[in-house]
Amino acid sequence: MHSRVEAARVARLATAGADGRPHIVPICYALDGDTLYFAVDAKPKRTTNLKRLRNIGANPAVSILVDHYEDDWARLWWIRLDGRARIVTDDAERERALALLAQRYPQYRTAKPGGPVVAVAIDGMNGWSAS
Amino acid sequence: MHSRVEAARVARLATAGADGRPHIVPICYALDGDTLYFAVDAKPKRTTNLKRLRNIGANPAVSILVDHYEDDWARLWWIRLDGRARIVTDDAERERALALLAQRYPQYRTAKPGGPVVAVAIDGMNGWSAS
Repeated sequence: MHSRVEAARVARLATAGADGRPHIVPICYALDGDTLYFAVDAKPKRTTNLKRLRNIGANPAVSILVDHYEDDWARLWWIRLDGRARIVTDDAERERALALLAQRYPQYRTAKPGGPVVAVAIDGMNGWSAS
Repeated sequence: MHSRVEAARVARLATAGADGRPHIVPICYALDGDTLYFAVDAKPKRTTNLKRLRNIGANPAVSILVDHYEDDWARLWWIRLDGRARIVTDDAERERALALLAQRYPQYRTAKPGGPVVAVAIDGMNGWSAS
């Protein structure tokens, strides 16, 4: 499961606000042991785009899905990572996370994310594979 | 946005339980106006796989994401559908939903889902596109 998560390029992050409403966005991510990092771009975002950060502040529980879809359903698989998210406030940890993200995504080498970096401490991993 | 959701083959569903913990799974789906349907297979599932249904029973708010990822980030887009989910109990509605699913997915023509069908009344649609 770990190598599939490492190989995938995109995941989907589910958060839930204090009101219990779930919210879902795609994320680009990097792993560091049992911690998953993702970053928010610096450019101004509409309020709706920061909902993920407000939700994490109110409720750190998150669920992250990496999956594979194709029309041949014998080849489907998914891996779900559950954990607790926090906004990274330590400068050294932020730089390390951005370096890991830049290793995986060339786009982050030329345009370093200026917004918050989020760390997810993964405390559960579940997977399913059709084959 | 509607045509992108119609054309996509897979979406990701986020639910949240009474405890506020989010949960995320991939779904195959069909649209009928402002209602999105998905089905659960009949074959026995491990308890964890029914978490989506338990969550919906406790908290009908759901968030569904259809997105496109590729390494060229100028071509990224996503569409998020927010709504309220319920398990379909009316036989006629169930048959109609299964027919819509079978239209989109040949797999459902040869192996009709025997588990619950879920209807999501979509009350919000948000989208983003890089280009």
